[in-house]
Amino acid sequence: MAKYANLYEYEAASQEVLSAMAHSYYSGVARDGITLKANRNAWDELYLYYRVLVDVSHRHTGTRILDQDMKAPVLVAPTAFHGLAHPKGELETAQGAALQDCVYIASTLSNQSIESICSTSTGSVWFQLYVYKDREVTLNLIQRAERAGCKALVVTVDAAMIGTREQDRAFRFHLPKGLTMGNFIDSHRAHLDQSSNDSALAQYVQSQLDPSLSWSDLSWLVKQSSLPVLVKGIVRADDALLAMKSGAQGVIVSNHGGRQLDTAPPTALVLPKIRQSLGDSAVVLVDGGIRRGTDIVKAIALGADAVLLGRPILWGLAQDGHDGVAHILSLLHAELLEAMALCGCDTIKSITRDLVHQS
Amino acid sequence: MAKYANLYEYEAASQEVLSAMAHSYYSGVARDGITLKANRNAWDELYLYYRVLVDVSHRHTGTRILDQDMKAPVLVAPTAFHGLAHPKGELETAQGAALQDCVYIASTLSNQSIESICSTSTGSVWFQLYVYKDREVTLNLIQRAERAGCKALVVTVDAAMIGTREQDRAFRFHLPKGLTMGNFIDSHRAHLDQSSNDSALAQYVQSQLDPSLSWSDLSWLVKQSSLPVLVKGIVRADDALLAMKSGAQGVIVSNHGGRQLDTAPPTALVLPKIRQSLGDSAVVLVDGGIRRGTDIVKAIALGADAVLLGRPILWGLAQDGHDGVAHILSLLHAELLEAMALCGCDTIKSITRDLVHQS
Amino acid sequence: MAKYANLYEYEAASQEVLSAMAHSYYSGVARDGITLKANRNAWDELYLYYRVLVDVSHRHTGTRILDQDMKAPVLVAPTAFHGLAHPKGELETAQGAALQDCVYIASTLSNQSIESICSTSTGSVWFQLYVYKDREVTLNLIQRAERAGCKALVVTVDAAMIGTREQDRAFRFHLPKGLTMGNFIDSHRAHLDQSSNDSALAQYVQSQLDPSLSWSDLSWLVKQSSLPVLVKGIVRADDALLAMKSGAQGVIVSNHGGRQLDTAPPTALVLPKIRQSLGDSAVVLVDGGIRRGTDIVKAIALGADAVLLGRPILWGLAQDGHDGVAHILSLLHAELLEAMALCGCDTIKSITRDLVHQS
Amino acid sequence: MAKYANLYEYEAASQEVLSAMAHSYYSGVARDGITLKANRNAWDELYLYYRVLVDVSHRHTGTRILDQDMKAPVLVAPTAFHGLAHPKGELETAQGAALQDCVYIASTLSNQSIESICSTSTGSVWFQLYVYKDREVTLNLIQRAERAGCKALVVTVDAAMIGTREQDRAFRFHLPKGLTMGNFIDSHRAHLDQSSNDSALAQYVQSQLDPSLSWSDLSWLVKQSSLPVLVKGIVRADDALLAMKSGAQGVIVSNHGGRQLDTAPPTALVLPKIRQSLGDSAVVLVDGGIRRGTDIVKAIALGADAVLLGRPILWGLAQDGHDGVAHILSLLHAELLEAMALCGCDTIKSITRDLVHQS
Repeated sequence: MAKYANLYEYEAASQEVLSAMAHSYYSGVARDGITLKANRNAWDELYLYYRVLVDVSHRHTGTRILDQDMKAPVLVAPTAFHGLAHPKGELETAQGAALQDCVYIASTLSNQSIESICSTSTGSVWFQLYVYKDREVTLNLIQRAERAGCKALVVTVDAAMIGTREQDRAFRFHLPKGLTMGNFIDSHRAHLDQSSNDSALAQYVQSQLDPSLSWSDLSWLVKQSSLPVLVKGIVRADDALLAMKSGAQGVIVSNHGGRQLDTAPPTALVLPKIRQSLGDSAVVLVDGGIRRGTDIVKAIALGADAVLLGRPILWGLAQDGHDGVAHILSLLHAELLEAMALCGCDTIKSITRDLVHQS
Repeated sequence: MAKYANLYEYEAASQEVLSAMAHSYYSGVARDGITLKANRNAWDELYLYYRVLVDVSHRHTGTRILDQDMKAPVLVAPTAFHGLAHPKGELETAQGAALQDCVYIASTLSNQSIESICSTSTGSVWFQLYVYKDREVTLNLIQRAERAGCKALVVTVDAAMIGTREQDRAFRFHLPKGLTMGNFIDSHRAHLDQSSNDSALAQYVQSQLDPSLSWSDLSWLVKQSSLPVLVKGIVRADDALLAMKSGAQGVIVSNHGGRQLDTAPPTALVLPKIRQSLGDSAVVLVDGGIRRGTDIVKAIALGADAVLLGRPILWGLAQDGHDGVAHILSLLHAELLEAMALCGCDTIKSITRDLVHQS
Repeated sequence: MAKYANLYEYEAASQEVLSAMAHSYYSGVARDGITLKANRNAWDELYLYYRVLVDVSHRHTGTRILDQDMKAPVLVAPTAFHGLAHPKGELETAQGAALQDCVYIASTLSNQSIESICSTSTGSVWFQLYVYKDREVTLNLIQRAERAGCKALVVTVDAAMIGTREQDRAFRFHLPKGLTMGNFIDSHRAHLDQSSNDSALAQYVQSQLDPSLSWSDLSWLVKQSSLPVLVKGIVRADDALLAMKSGAQGVIVSNHGGRQLDTAPPTALVLPKIRQSLGDSAVVLVDGGIRRGTDIVKAIALGADAVLLGRPILWGLAQDGHDGVAHILSLLHAELLEAMALCGCDTIKSITRDLVHQS
Repeated sequence: MAKYANLYEYEAASQEVLSAMAHSYYSGVARDGITLKANRNAWDELYLYYRVLVDVSHRHTGTRILDQDMKAPVLVAPTAFHGLAHPKGELETAQGAALQDCVYIASTLSNQSIESICSTSTGSVWFQLYVYKDREVTLNLIQRAERAGCKALVVTVDAAMIGTREQDRAFRFHLPKGLTMGNFIDSHRAHLDQSSNDSALAQYVQSQLDPSLSWSDLSWLVKQSSLPVLVKGIVRADDALLAMKSGAQGVIVSNHGGRQLDTAPPTALVLPKIRQSLGDSAVVLVDGGIRRGTDIVKAIALGADAVLLGRPILWGLAQDGHDGVAHILSLLHAELLEAMALCGCDTIKSITRDLVHQS
């Protein structure tokens, strides 16, 4: 019998295997944590109006996104600094995701380089991009990601500046000795040394990332590679439309897990409006508080093509390296299969709006 | 003065008379238990707009369902494995129900056989059917139930597979030595031995019950006996209509007491829509969190013909055998009579929609 | 400085001066106490949209109800058995009410007779009537009340039978030695001796009071005296209209303080609909959870002519006899004056609907 | 790194630096404190539908109100008796506000005189006026404020009488030896000595301030100086319109921080209706529970020109004199800049209604 029965048990256990600073960073929220709670509650508060007497003896969780076949509508969200959870950091995460045939979206702020992540992974890797003030740096990242074999770009747009995480500030969050930014080795951008009065990450973001980024920059960016682009951090239908107009293939409905603007709306609340405004052809992913197989069913019923899983991956990684990552994903996959059976759904396509909304 | 004043006191006391595994099984819920709580809260949150100055000196709780006269609109819901609560198991339950002139719906998963239950009972017994992959087994059950004298079939349709009850998994739920499935004696289907990593019941359901069951199977099933059929586990109006089309006499609005799909809607929420779509002639029963006489009045005002009582029967059985079962039913009957008096209702028919809904 | 600053402090203190049985009886609720909480919360949850820059240097709380001038729109609600709180029981209550120029509605179930209450009181007394199965007893009560000088009859109609108060049952509530029903001295109706398995009051109600009471009885009753009649225990607009048709001068919107039908709606919720259906000329009073001067303003804004105060009077009586009763009333009067000033209201008439409802 | 990271930490710390009586007075609420909680919750419960990919590299918090340029849409609300928090009282507050280029609204009930406040301050001071029964006193205050250099008058209209703060009454709140009313030195109006049974402030308000104040008085008052007048304490759109008709330049939506009429509506609830009724040209400020930069963004999105900060200023003052006041303001300014960046707003004008309300 596996050690932990669900993602919540992994969460509780993470406190014991992570350093206090790392635990604070991973669990961290902007300001009062209102959005973090709202994200979770929004999923719990939706009822599933299940169907009965549908043949669910064969259920298929497979789906296709950006011309890639996926085993299930679940991706590993980009999160920073996996070296805080495991010595091999993102290499383990990539391996765990691949074991479950799951796309891993590597972060710009990884401790391992995108090249080593891609060469280690036997699965599909996407690259999450932060846009640096220095456009050469940005362009270089895109080109390296494409060359390394990444299949898509995820541009994060909800971090014009960092949302203050007061606990990180109190810990003066930094990368411990031996950990660097894997994508910037030997440059000054590789370091996140302890500062005297703030999170070193907050200072890094302020000095390096570009708060002037606008829609025209996105149009420019889309043209810099042949990779499809998803825009991450959208909570408004009008912004989602602008993303499509700028050449993106779709959006990721996200509030950065409650880490950027506190009191941003829960993603489950805004997802249906965004899908409705974009129509069926755009890619719409969602993250924020997905912890149960039923949450995935709800997300898809509300219009998502797939969900992203952030913090839980780190809890699995911290607990048991790539096996932990794979176990988190397999727990959720089993829950999804069960939820589909109990909802009377045998394919992802059969998960329709009426499951969450009865007129 | 009786030992316990209401069903909640029986619930609290059940922890002391049941083994930890049995208590966990009876009180068990799928996943996070959200539906269990929602079931209860939904009844509590409805207000009763009572009428005054109606002559309630003579109140009649009698009703007629499927051509059977009943003392009150209350039936004993099918629940499994009464042997965990009392050595004589379902025989005691049947006797207790009969003492209160109450229909007992025996479960396929009883520790006693349907024949011995029917022959012991001086009252009316219905049979709850799980559909086995092996249709011969299924057919055999139907025929035995009809031959034994059951008056109706209740087909459970919300258990295409079992909803994971994490606590049962932790306990590796199984039937203790000496307890078997009464309806399958001497077959391999009779045993629920301890497994190394899961609830033995979960494994049994997976190996034996049919997840491919569909509406056409229901049509077939209805024709296999002369017994009227009710479909249990409905939460949608469209499914309720399909049940009627398939030849059922009615439905039981139920989410399996929160034990199958967590975040299924509370039954009080969906009941009115289902009654509205079926019209007056269909039979509509409801279960899920009924604990007070006022809950029964509310269920009827929302459109139910009667309610089913699940876990409380087990608390009574565990406490005091058939007398405990009868006491639970008599407590609720007394509460119903009181609630009717205070609502200005002298018959079940006089319990109308306006009692819960004031425009 | 007075000992207690508000009604809540009196409530907390009441536990120390009352016997456990008396405290349980006074604070008692039907079943789960849902209506008691709902009554209170409903007042708290209403916002007061106060007006400014109105001359409130002279505020008048006076009002006129049933041709009686009142110092304030507050009456003492009928409650039973004041002998449990003070040796002189209702005589003290009547005196305290009179000190504050407040109508005292004496209960049928008083420990003192209506004659001694009226002869002691220097103020106005009304009589609350329970209708006995024996119509002679009933008629006799009405005639005695009228003869004693009562100015109005309040007929309680929400007690066709008693709502079970489980704690009273557990205490086997009864009148201690020396306490009798003051209106029935020397008859068998005067006694409430300890029973072996229930509240003696519950048994008394069942044996004595008339559950067959209907609207035609009310019409008969109205004609038995020259006193104006108010019908107490109404929560529906249609019932309120029937009361007027039967000859009543008005209604008291009440759910018996949550002591009869649990999950009855909070009075603040139903009051506006009842006033709207009766129009301006009928008398509409309300009780249930009034604890603050702002609650009185809200009740009047929602359509009440005045409020009734129940349990708080008993807390004052238990604490300090007639002075305690008077202090409770004066605390509330001071709060009313303050609330009116802060709402921009100088008379009771100026307390209009828009104070609680902004379109 | 600063001692306290946010306003809540200052609040918690204030208990240690203030006397029990001062702490009770500053944190005090009318009656049950329902409005205080509602004020806070109303801000927290609003979601911010942030925009992305707007160039926020240069953000301007500047705004212009009553022809005065302000660094940010934040003013120091008028609060009484700063001498309880710091020996130099309002002089420190004025200095701290000026350090942050923030308007300080001095209270009539200051421990320092308006002349000394204005002569100490290097920034802009407004004067909050309570209207005394003695119009000569009132007129004298206005003339002194104008002469001292105040730039606007804020007339408080929600204090026709004081809302009872039961804890102040219990403490028999008064000014300790050495503290007087700075604007009334050498008159009997300067003293707030301990009374035997109430808050001395409550008695002062009752004896000195004018509960007969009406709209015609406001018209008179507006003409007594050349200063623009804002009316503070408005929660209704009709009252806001009357204020404009009476010659005011605008209103301050306020319920006196929950200190006057308990159960007054939260200011965030009434603000949008008031702005809507007044149109764009009137000045609309708001206070009540502003504790985060996001609250300021929400207030402006709902129609406010700026917010007022009350209790937090006192926490800063008590902790660290003018530096504490300045730190409170700078914390909030930094949070505002961050919230604007994360909302995609580069100017105050760009904070539009759709940020809080998505149709």
